[in-house]
Amino acid sequence: MKYDAIIIGGNPAGASAASAFKQTYKDKSVLVIRKEKDALIPCGIPYAIGSLPSVDANIKAVDGLQKKGVEFAYDEVVSVNSEEKTLSTAAGETHSYSKLVFATGSNPFVPPIPGADLDGIITIQKNTEYIRSIREDLRSAKNLVVIGAGFIGVEVCDELVKFSEKVTLIEAMDSILPLAFDKDMSDHIEEKLSSHGVSIIKSAMVSRIGGSDGKVSHIELSDGSTLPADKVILSIGYRPNTALAGKTGLLLGSTGGIWTDEYMRTSVEDIFAVGDCVEHKDYFSGKPSRLMLASTGAAEARVAGFNLFNLKIVRHCKGSIAIFSSSLNDISMGAAGLTEKQAEKEGFDIILAHSEGMDRHPGKITDASKVMIKGIFSKEGGVLLGAQIIGGKSTGEMINILGLAIQKSMTASELAIMQYGTQPLLTSGPGVYPIVLCAMNALEKLIK
Amino acid sequence: MKYDAIIIGGNPAGASAASAFKQTYKDKSVLVIRKEKDALIPCGIPYAIGSLPSVDANIKAVDGLQKKGVEFAYDEVVSVNSEEKTLSTAAGETHSYSKLVFATGSNPFVPPIPGADLDGIITIQKNTEYIRSIREDLRSAKNLVVIGAGFIGVEVCDELVKFSEKVTLIEAMDSILPLAFDKDMSDHIEEKLSSHGVSIIKSAMVSRIGGSDGKVSHIELSDGSTLPADKVILSIGYRPNTALAGKTGLLLGSTGGIWTDEYMRTSVEDIFAVGDCVEHKDYFSGKPSRLMLASTGAAEARVAGFNLFNLKIVRHCKGSIAIFSSSLNDISMGAAGLTEKQAEKEGFDIILAHSEGMDRHPGKITDASKVMIKGIFSKEGGVLLGAQIIGGKSTGEMINILGLAIQKSMTASELAIMQYGTQPLLTSGPGVYPIVLCAMNALEKLIK
Repeated sequence: MKYDAIIIGGNPAGASAASAFKQTYKDKSVLVIRKEKDALIPCGIPYAIGSLPSVDANIKAVDGLQKKGVEFAYDEVVSVNSEEKTLSTAAGETHSYSKLVFATGSNPFVPPIPGADLDGIITIQKNTEYIRSIREDLRSAKNLVVIGAGFIGVEVCDELVKFSEKVTLIEAMDSILPLAFDKDMSDHIEEKLSSHGVSIIKSAMVSRIGGSDGKVSHIELSDGSTLPADKVILSIGYRPNTALAGKTGLLLGSTGGIWTDEYMRTSVEDIFAVGDCVEHKDYFSGKPSRLMLASTGAAEARVAGFNLFNLKIVRHCKGSIAIFSSSLNDISMGAAGLTEKQAEKEGFDIILAHSEGMDRHPGKITDASKVMIKGIFSKEGGVLLGAQIIGGKSTGEMINILGLAIQKSMTASELAIMQYGTQPLLTSGPGVYPIVLCAMNALEKLIK
Repeated sequence: MKYDAIIIGGNPAGASAASAFKQTYKDKSVLVIRKEKDALIPCGIPYAIGSLPSVDANIKAVDGLQKKGVEFAYDEVVSVNSEEKTLSTAAGETHSYSKLVFATGSNPFVPPIPGADLDGIITIQKNTEYIRSIREDLRSAKNLVVIGAGFIGVEVCDELVKFSEKVTLIEAMDSILPLAFDKDMSDHIEEKLSSHGVSIIKSAMVSRIGGSDGKVSHIELSDGSTLPADKVILSIGYRPNTALAGKTGLLLGSTGGIWTDEYMRTSVEDIFAVGDCVEHKDYFSGKPSRLMLASTGAAEARVAGFNLFNLKIVRHCKGSIAIFSSSLNDISMGAAGLTEKQAEKEGFDIILAHSEGMDRHPGKITDASKVMIKGIFSKEGGVLLGAQIIGGKSTGEMINILGLAIQKSMTASELAIMQYGTQPLLTSGPGVYPIVLCAMNALEKLIK
C-alpha cells in the first residue's frame, strides 16, 4: 500500500506524531505499524504489575486515533529502502511512503552481570504478553529484588510491596533517584519507601546473580554479602532501539540514538525520528543526552507530526529538559532541569534556594500535604536551572510550572513577582505559594 | 516610634509586603498595623463558616514573620500626615515612617436593595469576631439565601449545604461565576452544586428583602415571586477600602482604587499601596480594573516590599491577569485571563479550543477525574488570551501553568510543542496532556 506517512512504532511518541499529523494534513493518509494490537501505556506498567486490577486496565485504546483516520497495522518492519521509499514487514507486506517516522522506542538495558540470563530475571518491557506473564509470576515469588533505583525501580518496588513479603531495592549510588533528585531531597522519598516496607541497599554493586537449576536463587554484592532472590527485576535503564535505523543508514549520535535536526528530521531525506530512539540535546549545555521520557517523546512527535510535509510550526528549542514526576501515593515528587550535583558538574556557578509549606490553606484542611521545593539558580542573573519538589499529588502539575519557567529562561526575580492563583482546597496560601517563596529565598541570596 | 517602613493592613498583601521587605532590607525596621491579632485567612472564610472544625482553624499565624523581625501592632490608623511622615492610631499612638504601605484591603459591597439593613443580613467580612458569630447563627437558620454567584457565593453555598436544610443561591446573570467562566463551562459546575443540594435561581434580581420585627423573613424577586429566608448572605462583591487613602490625599483611580505606578508607588512620595485597595490595570487592554484576588495582592505586595527603598527588582508587568481557582471537592475549577464573552466584548478576534481527558493515566486509576479545558486564542498569531479548566484537584496548579503561559504571551504553537512531565498517579498521559491537546485543537483551526 502507498501512504503519505508511515510511522514505525505506536507508543506515546508514535501515536502523538500520528495525531498531530492527521489534524494538520487532513487529506493525507497515515499508517502506524506496531507489533501489538493491545499496547501498554508505558508509564503505567508498574501499576499494571501492581495495584491496577489487571494488565488490561493499562491498555491504550486506539479508537480515538482510528476515528480521526489513522490506520494501524500490527506487524513489524524488517527493512526500509530509503531510495525507493518502501518498507517490508515480517508479515510479508510492502508499503511505500512519502514521509517515514521512526518511533521505535527503547529496550531495557541488561548489564553484563554474570547470571543476568538466568530464569527469573525480569526486565520492564513495553510488551503486553510479557507483562501479563510476569504479573502472575511476581505474585508467587517470596523474595523479590529490584536492581536500580530510578523512577521505574522505585515505582515497581512501591507496587510489589503491596502484595509481596520481601522486596529489596539495590542502588549503586548513595541515594535513590540520583538522576532527578539530590540526596537531601531523595532522602525524604527513601524514608517513605522504606516505611512502606521496601528494604533499600545503597552504594551497592551487584557482582553476580546466583542460581541453581538455571533459576535465580540469590544476589551477590561486591562486598561479599548475599541475599536470597526468587525473582530479580533489572531496572538499570533503557537503550535506544536503533537496529532498523542502523540498517536503514540513518546517522546515529554518540550516545547511540538517532541524530535529528530541530524538526526531528534524520540524516536521510523524508525520514524523521522521535522519542526514545532519538539522541536528544541537553537544554543547558547542548551536549548529546540520553533522556528518555514519554512526555519528551510526545512533544518531539508533535513537532514531527505538524511539520512532516511543511515546516508549519517554527520551533526554537534549546534542547530537552528533563521533567520528571512520580508518586508513592502518600508522597509525590517532581524534578525539572538540573540537580545541584549536575549543575556543579557542568560548571555552573549556582545558588540554592529552598521553600516549604502546605499545599492547601489553612493547613488544617483534610487533604493538605507538606510541600518542599529546592531550586537551583545561576549566581549571576538568577536564572532558574533546576527544581525539585516533594509534596502531595499537585506536585505533578507544580513541576510543570517550573518546567515551563525553565523553558522561558525565567529568573528568580520574575518568579518572585509572578502572577498565580490560589484557593484553600487546591493550593498553598497566596502569601506562601512555595514556588514564589523558593524564588524569594533565591533573591535573599542574590540581593546583597 | 520611628520605623523605616510601616504597613497599614496585615492580610495577605500586607503580610507579603512585610516579608519581602524584611528579607531584602535586613537591618531596617518594619511595623505592620492591623486591627485584629487573630486575623483570618481571607480565602478560607467559606470553610471557616463550614467544614473546618472552628473559625480558629482559619487563623493565619504571624510567628513566622515575627521571627524574621517584623513587628505587629493591633490597632487602627486614623490619620496620616504625609508631610511630616507620621501617622496616628485609634489607641492614641503616633509613629513616624520613612516608607508607608497602604494594604487596607476591601469591604463587602452592600447593594442599595430595600431591606439590606435588616437583622439577619450577613456579609463575608474579613473580621474574626464577626465570622465567629455568624458561624453559630448560620447553624441555627432554616432557610438560607445567598445573593451573588461569584466564587465566594458559590463556595459559601457549598459549605452551608453541608449542615443546612435549604440553601438558595440567587444570581442576576444567566450563569454562575460569570466573571471567570463562560456559561458552557460553568453549567458543569452549576450541575454539581445543584447535586449537592443548593437551589440555584439565575437571571433573577432581588427587588426587596422583606422582614418582620426588624428581622429578615423573605426575599422578593423582581418577577414578583418570594422565598422565605432566615438569613441572607450578600456576596455581590467588594469595594476598595480607601477612606484613609482619600483623607491622606492619595490619588484614586476611576474605579475607586488607589492609583499606583509600576512599582506600587502612589501619587504621594514615599507612600506605596498594594492589594485590594489598589486600582489594577487589565493585562489585555490596559484599562483600569477592579480585580481583587489575594494572590494578585500578594504578588504586588512583593513588588513593593522588594523595592521600598531602591528599585531592586525590575518589573515588566503589562497588567493584572485574573487567575482564579475554586473547588467543590468533587469538582474543581480554574480560570485565567479573558473569558470568551470578555474577549469578544473587548473586541478581540478569537478562536476557541477545547480538550478533554483524565487527570491520571490510565483513567482507571482510582482518584482519576475528568478534565475539560476551554482555551481562547487570538485568531491572528494564536496568542493565548484565556483558559478555563474544570477537573480534579490538580486544576489549581494547571491553571497556574496557563496563567504563566498568558504572562509569557505564549502561542498555541508554542504550547502544542511545550515540554512537560507526566506520571500515571499525578497527571494525564504524555500523549493526551490536556493543555497541549487544547493548544493542538487551536492549531487545527489556525492552520488551514
